[in-house]
Amino acid sequence: MDAQSLENILNKIQQGDLSVADAMNQLKYFSYDDIGHTKIDDHREYRTGYPEVIYCSGKTPVQVREIFEAMQGKEVNIIATRADKETYEEVVRVIPEAEYHEMARIITLKKKEISFVKTYISIVSAGTSDMPVAEEAAISAEFFGNPIKRFYDVGVAGIHRLQKNISDINKGKVIVVIAGMEGALPSVVGGLADKPVIGVPTSIGYGANFQGLSALLGMLTSCASGVSVVNINNGFGAGYIASMINKL
Amino acid sequence: MDAQSLENILNKIQQGDLSVADAMNQLKYFSYDDIGHTKIDDHREYRTGYPEVIYCSGKTPVQVREIFEAMQGKEVNIIATRADKETYEEVVRVIPEAEYHEMARIITLKKKEISFVKTYISIVSAGTSDMPVAEEAAISAEFFGNPIKRFYDVGVAGIHRLQKNISDINKGKVIVVIAGMEGALPSVVGGLADKPVIGVPTSIGYGANFQGLSALLGMLTSCASGVSVVNINNGFGAGYIASMINKL
Amino acid sequence: MDAQSLENILNKIQQGDLSVADAMNQLKYFSYDDIGHTKIDDHREYRTGYPEVIYCSGKTPVQVREIFEAMQGKEVNIIATRADKETYEEVVRVIPEAEYHEMARIITLKKKEISFVKTYISIVSAGTSDMPVAEEAAISAEFFGNPIKRFYDVGVAGIHRLQKNISDINKGKVIVVIAGMEGALPSVVGGLADKPVIGVPTSIGYGANFQGLSALLGMLTSCASGVSVVNINNGFGAGYIASMINKL
Amino acid sequence: MDAQSLENILNKIQQGDLSVADAMNQLKYFSYDDIGHTKIDDHREYRTGYPEVIYCSGKTPVQVREIFEAMQGKEVNIIATRADKETYEEVVRVIPEAEYHEMARIITLKKKEISFVKTYISIVSAGTSDMPVAEEAAISAEFFGNPIKRFYDVGVAGIHRLQKNISDINKGKVIVVIAGMEGALPSVVGGLADKPVIGVPTSIGYGANFQGLSALLGMLTSCASGVSVVNINNGFGAGYIASMINKL
Amino acid sequence: MDAQSLENILNKIQQGDLSVADAMNQLKYFSYDDIGHTKIDDHREYRTGYPEVIYCSGKTPVQVREIFEAMQGKEVNIIATRADKETYEEVVRVIPEAEYHEMARIITLKKKEISFVKTYISIVSAGTSDMPVAEEAAISAEFFGNPIKRFYDVGVAGIHRLQKNISDINKGKVIVVIAGMEGALPSVVGGLADKPVIGVPTSIGYGANFQGLSALLGMLTSCASGVSVVNINNGFGAGYIASMINKL
Amino acid sequence: MDAQSLENILNKIQQGDLSVADAMNQLKYFSYDDIGHTKIDDHREYRTGYPEVIYCSGKTPVQVREIFEAMQGKEVNIIATRADKETYEEVVRVIPEAEYHEMARIITLKKKEISFVKTYISIVSAGTSDMPVAEEAAISAEFFGNPIKRFYDVGVAGIHRLQKNISDINKGKVIVVIAGMEGALPSVVGGLADKPVIGVPTSIGYGANFQGLSALLGMLTSCASGVSVVNINNGFGAGYIASMINKL
Amino acid sequence: MDAQSLENILNKIQQGDLSVADAMNQLKYFSYDDIGHTKIDDHREYRTGYPEVIYCSGKTPVQVREIFEAMQGKEVNIIATRADKETYEEVVRVIPEAEYHEMARIITLKKKEISFVKTYISIVSAGTSDMPVAEEAAISAEFFGNPIKRFYDVGVAGIHRLQKNISDINKGKVIVVIAGMEGALPSVVGGLADKPVIGVPTSIGYGANFQGLSALLGMLTSCASGVSVVNINNGFGAGYIASMINKL
Amino acid sequence: MDAQSLENILNKIQQGDLSVADAMNQLKYFSYDDIGHTKIDDHREYRTGYPEVIYCSGKTPVQVREIFEAMQGKEVNIIATRADKETYEEVVRVIPEAEYHEMARIITLKKKEISFVKTYISIVSAGTSDMPVAEEAAISAEFFGNPIKRFYDVGVAGIHRLQKNISDINKGKVIVVIAGMEGALPSVVGGLADKPVIGVPTSIGYGANFQGLSALLGMLTSCASGVSVVNINNGFGAGYIASMINKL
Repeated sequence: MDAQSLENILNKIQQGDLSVADAMNQLKYFSYDDIGHTKIDDHREYRTGYPEVIYCSGKTPVQVREIFEAMQGKEVNIIATRADKETYEEVVRVIPEAEYHEMARIITLKKKEISFVKTYISIVSAGTSDMPVAEEAAISAEFFGNPIKRFYDVGVAGIHRLQKNISDINKGKVIVVIAGMEGALPSVVGGLADKPVIGVPTSIGYGANFQGLSALLGMLTSCASGVSVVNINNGFGAGYIASMINKL
Repeated sequence: MDAQSLENILNKIQQGDLSVADAMNQLKYFSYDDIGHTKIDDHREYRTGYPEVIYCSGKTPVQVREIFEAMQGKEVNIIATRADKETYEEVVRVIPEAEYHEMARIITLKKKEISFVKTYISIVSAGTSDMPVAEEAAISAEFFGNPIKRFYDVGVAGIHRLQKNISDINKGKVIVVIAGMEGALPSVVGGLADKPVIGVPTSIGYGANFQGLSALLGMLTSCASGVSVVNINNGFGAGYIASMINKL
Repeated sequence: MDAQSLENILNKIQQGDLSVADAMNQLKYFSYDDIGHTKIDDHREYRTGYPEVIYCSGKTPVQVREIFEAMQGKEVNIIATRADKETYEEVVRVIPEAEYHEMARIITLKKKEISFVKTYISIVSAGTSDMPVAEEAAISAEFFGNPIKRFYDVGVAGIHRLQKNISDINKGKVIVVIAGMEGALPSVVGGLADKPVIGVPTSIGYGANFQGLSALLGMLTSCASGVSVVNINNGFGAGYIASMINKL
Repeated sequence: MDAQSLENILNKIQQGDLSVADAMNQLKYFSYDDIGHTKIDDHREYRTGYPEVIYCSGKTPVQVREIFEAMQGKEVNIIATRADKETYEEVVRVIPEAEYHEMARIITLKKKEISFVKTYISIVSAGTSDMPVAEEAAISAEFFGNPIKRFYDVGVAGIHRLQKNISDINKGKVIVVIAGMEGALPSVVGGLADKPVIGVPTSIGYGANFQGLSALLGMLTSCASGVSVVNINNGFGAGYIASMINKL
Repeated sequence: MDAQSLENILNKIQQGDLSVADAMNQLKYFSYDDIGHTKIDDHREYRTGYPEVIYCSGKTPVQVREIFEAMQGKEVNIIATRADKETYEEVVRVIPEAEYHEMARIITLKKKEISFVKTYISIVSAGTSDMPVAEEAAISAEFFGNPIKRFYDVGVAGIHRLQKNISDINKGKVIVVIAGMEGALPSVVGGLADKPVIGVPTSIGYGANFQGLSALLGMLTSCASGVSVVNINNGFGAGYIASMINKL
Repeated sequence: MDAQSLENILNKIQQGDLSVADAMNQLKYFSYDDIGHTKIDDHREYRTGYPEVIYCSGKTPVQVREIFEAMQGKEVNIIATRADKETYEEVVRVIPEAEYHEMARIITLKKKEISFVKTYISIVSAGTSDMPVAEEAAISAEFFGNPIKRFYDVGVAGIHRLQKNISDINKGKVIVVIAGMEGALPSVVGGLADKPVIGVPTSIGYGANFQGLSALLGMLTSCASGVSVVNINNGFGAGYIASMINKL
Repeated sequence: MDAQSLENILNKIQQGDLSVADAMNQLKYFSYDDIGHTKIDDHREYRTGYPEVIYCSGKTPVQVREIFEAMQGKEVNIIATRADKETYEEVVRVIPEAEYHEMARIITLKKKEISFVKTYISIVSAGTSDMPVAEEAAISAEFFGNPIKRFYDVGVAGIHRLQKNISDINKGKVIVVIAGMEGALPSVVGGLADKPVIGVPTSIGYGANFQGLSALLGMLTSCASGVSVVNINNGFGAGYIASMINKL
Repeated sequence: MDAQSLENILNKIQQGDLSVADAMNQLKYFSYDDIGHTKIDDHREYRTGYPEVIYCSGKTPVQVREIFEAMQGKEVNIIATRADKETYEEVVRVIPEAEYHEMARIITLKKKEISFVKTYISIVSAGTSDMPVAEEAAISAEFFGNPIKRFYDVGVAGIHRLQKNISDINKGKVIVVIAGMEGALPSVVGGLADKPVIGVPTSIGYGANFQGLSALLGMLTSCASGVSVVNINNGFGAGYIASMINKL
């Protein structure tokens, strides 16, 4: 906002030509709570349509539990990712209705009913070992109100397994594709489908996989158009973006 | 498709229970043309809703011109990216209505009118030097039938320039954010907006930028949700995905 | 397959000019089983001549055991790689005839007799520490029906040890060479032998070895012709390719 | 010092034209103690204004305790960084007044009162998980006699949290900014503030963060002027530099 | 700024309890000009005490000249970095009083007299080949009103050259140290001096220097405290930070 | 060879129990020519069945011509790779029957008729831009006496183009697969075919392709068995290995 | 050796013009023992003047003990590096006179008296944490018959500590310099001394040290002549080379 | 030197117990000339036994010529490395007796006769393309007074070429081994010879060579003892170290 415009708004308020409420609308994008170690961003749901998510890595179980407690009163649904069992146990001790999704390493707390949209998100994974990341995407997106269809273990080494399913995959409004090793699956799906594809490289593999680097570079350099990529193992991020697109 | 299902389809045809046309529908995802050095994928427009795009890098001007000539008869719109001036001159010599977008390094050939959707795509760039990549995204997406709003030179070192525009940026149905150096702009936009953000790292910068690596890693590890990433300098890819999402 | 060809096949079936069986033959490359977390590719043995191999990394012992159980009924030989002892114990609990090759970390299950070809594969390793990878290659290739000759601890720092053996090494139809550290052994063997050499870099070494990177780059840039390379520590992959070549 | 100048000094001493004390002043930058495994640099405080700091990584608890004991007699304040609890317990066993700052992993021993300057250092961190590094900076700088103001959890994904605080942040004479993931916070702060910014990348994040590389590269390629960078997780180094600047 | 605070400000204006001018003061950090390809940040000098600098890389000579023309009327001093000779010639064609500093690749335009502070900045470089980067730092800092002392070609391979000068180097209020190859000079200077050291790695060197990576990593892992680092070859950035510190 | 064995051979010769010719046979793997800058390895053809190949990179046109001249008298076929036009012109000036394959950058000199084996090698490439590398493989392998079938422009983004051809590809005795970008084609071919696949990553692509690194890592971490890899752009190496395998 | 020369030797033997012993002398560089998993190279001591060293990493304690037992009978001194305590205990169980050097992780077995040369090797290390690597170098070189002088904890951050010792350091015939972090010490020593310097980078440090990479690159790009480098943490290698040079 | 010792020396001078000359001897390691852009280190020859070498990279021809002129009066031999032809022409214009070694890119100026030691240095290179680096080593070492024997084009792909020469190579007092691609030659030479080996990786190769990285890593991780390494393409450095060792 340039100085002139801001000054104009303030002048209009002063002169009674603009209500404070209208001004607030023009000046939103501000405000948060503070519980000491963490500033909770509770306007976020209003601003972006999603609750702030708790990323548990690098936080102690006690810190996570305290954030849950601080947010609990606000009647918003809460989701915590990268949560190990110990963290869940600390949370569930004081909030018994918190649920744990073990494979996805997610804690959810449902304070109001989730309302689902009609269109679904296709979640496609290359191999059995990619399932935890795929589930992180699936559980997250479902919690945001999206129906999910899972297509697991359809990697490119047996391309016919993919082809049997491609027509159903393509009926999803957006497609999340999870793959480790060479990360080729998003390229193949992207070539067959006409929906946006979100690639999630995983660190499955060894040696020249370099903790997911091969899959990451593979997806970024995909010869198929329509593929964008999130961080290695970032199932949650993919689920979040897919949800944003699916709800448009 | 498993052997059983395929056999069922064939048996039904044999028994007259299924028409060839219906079978074809169940068995689509095949077919292309062949002009020697290149197999033109003209079912692609039908399959994905987009014409095949000519990626000019590594192709000689003559090869590009031949592909234009081969596709020209089919009354599809054609777009060629990463086209230098020499390539354009070879093409325009035989196809005078081909247009050149110099900053975006794109050749377009309009054989039928483009029909535009209503919602627009926001294209946001960090600095003046990122403009060629931003224009590649803008020209591509526009050619696919999307209205474009450009927000250029709003990088994070002067965050107020972004804030003046954030409300208009967020009115786009999807946001493409182009940035070099540390690539922080998608994180900031992603935190303020509630629309999907597609980050395009550029190779603008020097030293520890390592040809775009710093911006790429920065966008992939973004602390904001809702950001997915395409390859370094891949303006076209971002424009394509944004178009897919905008047309949903 | 282009649309025209496919339509021709379908029309011929409809018109009775082609049997379903013949069509199936022209349309193979499809079909698999589904046990929930894993789609078992049992046409694979028919299609490629090899059973699908179970890659145990990232799978729980229970998942591996379930795959064994699902495949067991089909009278195919089964091989599982990267299997730790715990996984073996879960498998052997229900399938007592499963065998464990500890150094190679392989579980095998022989349901029908292996028929061996005449020519042998030479497996050459640089140092004692490379033995687990060498054994993974040897046990795999043997299970696929290839006689194996082992030439271990013949690294380039004592080149005469290699020379004593080079004539026997070269009598193999194909040579697998395993080496860590600088990974120079395939270059030397490739210069002396006239058989295809498959190099397997290992992560043996420290510091500038960077988990096998030095050996990998060394083999890829080999000054000797006739050397191709597989992933770091990928003994199984080398054994598989060597088997393919040996059986030609 | 060139040979001629040195010879001149020596000649002047010989001729009685220069006192040894004055010569010593011209020839300072020498001297240390030796306790076997470590040469203690006790002129350092005189030379640089700071006590030598004990970097505990790679030293045994006993070695650290011996250094404390050797330095203890000299009535200087002592600070030991990267100290785990076990090391502290070894030290406190013989030096009961040693204090432990657990989150910062620092041991301090105050032998004389710390005299504080008036101006403060702003310590800004992006997320809760960056707190240990932020505390290492804060505790160190405080021990060197600087008032500290902490601004934690104000990362760029919620830019308004930063803006509420920017005016107070900028009142510090120098600003330390700690961030992991994409490390964008120093760029944004550097664009808003007019004080020197010292960026500390942290290894918080996963995948393409590559143990802090993304944050490090991000800060080094910052589009904002006024940002310099220290090693990944080097809270102490940032606190030390900030102290140097604050005390100018 | 939280929603409550903002609303309070607006309410006070409405109620006449706060003047627009005072509100503007509480709400600064906004405003810029727009010349199409570039948004000129002319509040920057007020906000940070420095004019916006023109970074010429990736801009055409014409774009740079237009920015000069747009800023020229405002009676601010202007500095443009990474400017090649061609760019300068385009600028000087219309602005004859623009000066070119060839080795530093800088264009300056002095519209008002520079007022110098008393304390100086020491600029230390390792070798003759590092001079362009050192000069970029020196010219920039001088233009910002700082006296400069240059200590060039005092690299660690001849440590006595450094020692002759260390006492004068340390009389600077802040020290900029430029070095390529192994980048060891900041460590040595940092161990001898008691002033903040800003290290600038250069891309001077070859092979394992990897375009400045060895010097960059060397400075970041410096065993001396008090060293912070800017991007490879970023002489301007170092000059800017040194100026900030020197003027405190 | 151990000292004992060698001594035995020598003793047998001395005692007349072994002819020199037989001993020579046991002691082969030695001998070469010397033309100053290069030692020509003319026993190589005898030892490995292939002429030594001239690798022109880093050699002057004159050096290459001299090697041709030195080898020319020996009635062997000669092949020179990575030869630019200038080199060819230097060679053809004195050896008029030398042929140039421009796209493959290969010079060949046929001194005796090539005798072809029956089975063919399949050479598969992903895109038009990969043709130079594919041709390097094809021309080399053909010169070594192998029939070649080319399958160009069948990349994974249009998987049906591959499927139309897979049955003919698989009729080759060995398959060379060339691909840039994400390098996924060998994985897909390897999953469909039952012949050894030699992957050749190319440096086609940009950004995160990092000069072929993405394709290289992708092929090395292929989820399909049966894929081994050669250096980036190493068409010749792949052609050589394919020839070795095809002639077994 | 070319075929002609070899044939000449064999012919001379056959004709009685050359004794087998003389021929053996011309054909040395062959022979070893075989204990199954390891081929012991006992001609090595004769050939290179040093016993083969046992590198324990990747070998089981039992394998190491077996190698000791196999070599023990030969009255050579034996040295085993990278030996953990468990390995030593397995060895000492059957060979009680084996000695363990804990900090250096070395087992030695002295079967004949070591004869020392007169000149000494200087071993210089930067910090206390580098001692294990320094000791590996020192113990090894001493075992090979070299007097050692240790100069520990003389890193570049306190350059005066080095200068006090430089004259004694330079009296060694060869200098080994061990340093982690930025690895600058060899550059400084190399600039002051006129003896060959062997740099040993260590993995001491964190963050941008990247497990010794910063020190390694720093030493390789040293601006001082006379510095060569061995692998990260390779104290033994440095001790071995220093011994070779010291004994010349 | 500690403060106490220095003070003692000064006191002794003052008291007449120590002559200035003796003090100067205890305090050497200082002094240089200054020609503005470069500080010439003319005590270096006295201190290290070698003239300072001019490294021309990054210096203009005029700067190099000025350094030559400044040093010329001192009757020392001068050597300038990495000198292109243009630089030589600038030098020879004013110093006609300067000589140019084109392949080695070295300028030498002989002001006094070189006195040669008896023992020679073996310089071994892998391929014709490595010759420029090998010649840089050879010309440098020769200029320092060492006889040189060259063994070129003896790479590991034809190991017999090396074996014919190994006995003469090993008669050198020290061995320099130059190799690109996988850099395996030093390992093989190091295993056969009993002299110190200095490895020089070159950037010869392509793809996974990564500008010499593969050769560098290969040499650093050599399985042979006795190999130390210098920077990629650093022929001069290797020649210098070899000279140091050869003259011991």
